Amino acid sequence: MNDQFRDGSQPGPLLAIDWGTTSRRAWLLRDDGEILASLADGRGMLSIPQGGWETAFAELKRELGGAEPRLSLVAGMAGADRGWRNAGYLPLPATADDLASGLCWIEPGAVAIVPGLAVTAEGTADVMRGEETQILGALAADLVPANCFACHPGTHTKWVTVDDGRVAAFRTVMTGELFAMLRKHSILADRLVGEVTAGPDFDAGMERGLATGEAIADLFAVRADVLSGAARIGNGAAYASGLLIGADVRIGLAMSDEREVYVIARPDLAALYVRAIERSGRSAVMVDGGSAVVAGLRRIGELVK
Amino acid sequence: MNDQFRDGSQPGPLLAIDWGTTSRRAWLLRDDGEILASLADGRGMLSIPQGGWETAFAELKRELGGAEPRLSLVAGMAGADRGWRNAGYLPLPATADDLASGLCWIEPGAVAIVPGLAVTAEGTADVMRGEETQILGALAADLVPANCFACHPGTHTKWVTVDDGRVAAFRTVMTGELFAMLRKHSILADRLVGEVTAGPDFDAGMERGLATGEAIADLFAVRADVLSGAARIGNGAAYASGLLIGADVRIGLAMSDEREVYVIARPDLAALYVRAIERSGRSAVMVDGGSAVVAGLRRIGELVK
Repeated sequence: MNDQFRDGSQPGPLLAIDWGTTSRRAWLLRDDGEILASLADGRGMLSIPQGGWETAFAELKRELGGAEPRLSLVAGMAGADRGWRNAGYLPLPATADDLASGLCWIEPGAVAIVPGLAVTAEGTADVMRGEETQILGALAADLVPANCFACHPGTHTKWVTVDDGRVAAFRTVMTGELFAMLRKHSILADRLVGEVTAGPDFDAGMERGLATGEAIADLFAVRADVLSGAARIGNGAAYASGLLIGADVRIGLAMSDEREVYVIARPDLAALYVRAIERSGRSAVMVDGGSAVVAGLRRIGELVK
Repeated sequence: MNDQFRDGSQPGPLLAIDWGTTSRRAWLLRDDGEILASLADGRGMLSIPQGGWETAFAELKRELGGAEPRLSLVAGMAGADRGWRNAGYLPLPATADDLASGLCWIEPGAVAIVPGLAVTAEGTADVMRGEETQILGALAADLVPANCFACHPGTHTKWVTVDDGRVAAFRTVMTGELFAMLRKHSILADRLVGEVTAGPDFDAGMERGLATGEAIADLFAVRADVLSGAARIGNGAAYASGLLIGADVRIGLAMSDEREVYVIARPDLAALYVRAIERSGRSAVMVDGGSAVVAGLRRIGELVK
């Protein structure tokens, strides 16, 4: 161990876990933020059998070198109804303090899951789980300003408005899930086998998606392009991805007039959203999702000390 | 047989077949339109093995009482690339004469498949196969006027503009396929198990779909409604169907200012579209899809005499 541990002022590191649907990431962190160990693997929620979470958690600590954290904080789908324990959803507006006060304790004072956030305003309903820790972490680490507009692209893209340091509003678009379903199960499937790259086909789809608000019709062009003999689309997967991301960005940007949009994601996916955001006349700033979730869990860890 | 057959002026009846993806319908018709025999079963394109179409056709005739038609005309997916034979696509504008001249003959003068229609105008591509026979048949039988706007709801809904008796434009919306995919494969699946009925949940979804043009985001409410505790949606399947049909109708109606919309489909599905069309301030007229396809194939049969 090290001096800080021996002098007793640091009873152990923080274990920060982002436990998602199909993968997880974990970081063992000293109070000053130094990463002592980290891990990323495919043991997401779907791979953990019912009643298997305690065991999976113990194994995770072993894989991190027999970590003995003073506090373990878990964000993400581990807190869903089908996860380790249902950590519930907090109402808006929400701050990091609210997340810290609303933790779902698995082992009091030692292991907790971060709650999600919910919108229940008249005529709408929405939920997020995981992104709240990222955006409030990005705020705590000054990666985004106290008033900002952010996009978390993914299976279910989230567009988030932050007012005065609080999550004030958000909206989900089912972009990633729809693309995966179309690729696997739809009549378009045999045209969606290629890699999604940011070339002319992506751009053509993106322009259409940004322009029409009619993605559920426009998608059919991927098939009709071949059958009709029009043959303008080379890479159908890139076109369809561009169309859905364009449609997603069109919906998202309608939520806010902020010129700057913070895109919180892994860099390859973020780049496609940045392209569509900039094409819409806004500017985009990429923020690494891993750094944001670590910052969020560290902040919550400080608040429960 | 009957007098008309014996006098030699009627060498045999017309066999009209609507051969779809998952089902088929067939009618044996006297020249005056009287139905001598008919059949509807599940032997659609997907159930016919490669090279099995001649056999399936011979069996169909046996099931219609050993029919010996003077002419057999087939509309629908039998003419697709994965069907009996690829009957191709004609350009717009198109009339029943064009369909008759463009028939794909399996057995010259005796058995033919009706071609589809294609749009290849700059920036768009679209195809239809089967609906062209219905809409031009509805025209021939005076079920719709020579200038009209029609909707064919289904797996791939088609919105069709008819100018001066010709199909002038059309657009596909992937409504039925998307609903089936969401029901079977999406994270919303466990909320989409109910029957779709035209009650308050259908209406709530429909209002949203007609209003926003953001179906790929709005659909998530079906899940978030439960998780957030909002609990406003009773029948998730009806809500999602309403949302998609509302979004479909919003896209379709943007194509035309015609006050009257002819909905060509089976009555239960047509009723849901009529509801959304009327909510949009237009009026809707239901036309039976079976009558329309029979009228179309009869008209083509007259033109090739």
